[in-house]
Amino acid sequence: MSDDLNNSQRLEELDPEECWQLIRPGGVGRLATAITNHPDIFPVNYVVDGTSVVIRTTAGLKLASAVLGTSVAFEVDRLHESTKTAWSVVLKGRATEVTNLEDLLEAIDLDIEPWAGTTGKNRFIRLNPEAITGRKIDRSASISIQD
Amino acid sequence: MSDDLNNSQRLEELDPEECWQLIRPGGVGRLATAITNHPDIFPVNYVVDGTSVVIRTTAGLKLASAVLGTSVAFEVDRLHESTKTAWSVVLKGRATEVTNLEDLLEAIDLDIEPWAGTTGKNRFIRLNPEAITGRKIDRSASISIQD
Repeated sequence: MSDDLNNSQRLEELDPEECWQLIRPGGVGRLATAITNHPDIFPVNYVVDGTSVVIRTTAGLKLASAVLGTSVAFEVDRLHESTKTAWSVVLKGRATEVTNLEDLLEAIDLDIEPWAGTTGKNRFIRLNPEAITGRKIDRSASISIQD
Repeated sequence: MSDDLNNSQRLEELDPEECWQLIRPGGVGRLATAITNHPDIFPVNYVVDGTSVVIRTTAGLKLASAVLGTSVAFEVDRLHESTKTAWSVVLKGRATEVTNLEDLLEAIDLDIEPWAGTTGKNRFIRLNPEAITGRKIDRSASISIQD
């Protein structure tokens, strides 16, 4: 962990353990995909299962078919206005579909609310990241140049 | 605009004018890039300037050099827990750097706070989207199966 003290804020790189801790509660994240170098981005609900991220989507959404087997990036961030701190964690790796019955039941047990759409056949995507990086920003030390 | 009434929520596609209205106040969005089909994603602060989005970043960040001239996706979403509504808007297009002095002064005037890092040389990225799409989700009509 390294600290940089700017004249207005502290920027801190997070180690993988800190990153997992921050994203463990689950909630809303954003999945970025790239097909023929054209990026797309989707807000999704996720849960953390061990050291993987599980996302629920519905059949028919281009999301599931688009991401399977390809490299994806998944990002979670939170901005705390009251404490003037913010963090962002990015995971990178390949997305796989949860198809094994036991895994599927486990995924359903995780009880992930889809961001959009609750009807239709559910599909679960698991991301076992090859890399997880994060940064935390503390603006509470900011020097204001305005009143 | 088309409405789909699910048994638990309404999903509404937004037209471009509605999308612009939603993102016009500015704030935090996420920029997705794809270099050799490897997506990456960055939380950024943005402002809307006419029908383009302007993002401030700092020199040295891989962001600026990575996105220039390439296709990017930029997403903004808001979740309103109190009203159980959510929306997400995605813009797609090519990112260009603001280099022209007049444009640069105009971009500085827009007064965008960088998400991370306020020291160093500032760089401004403008996205003139080729496409803008959005969806709104209303969960207030949800039928709860739990007490």
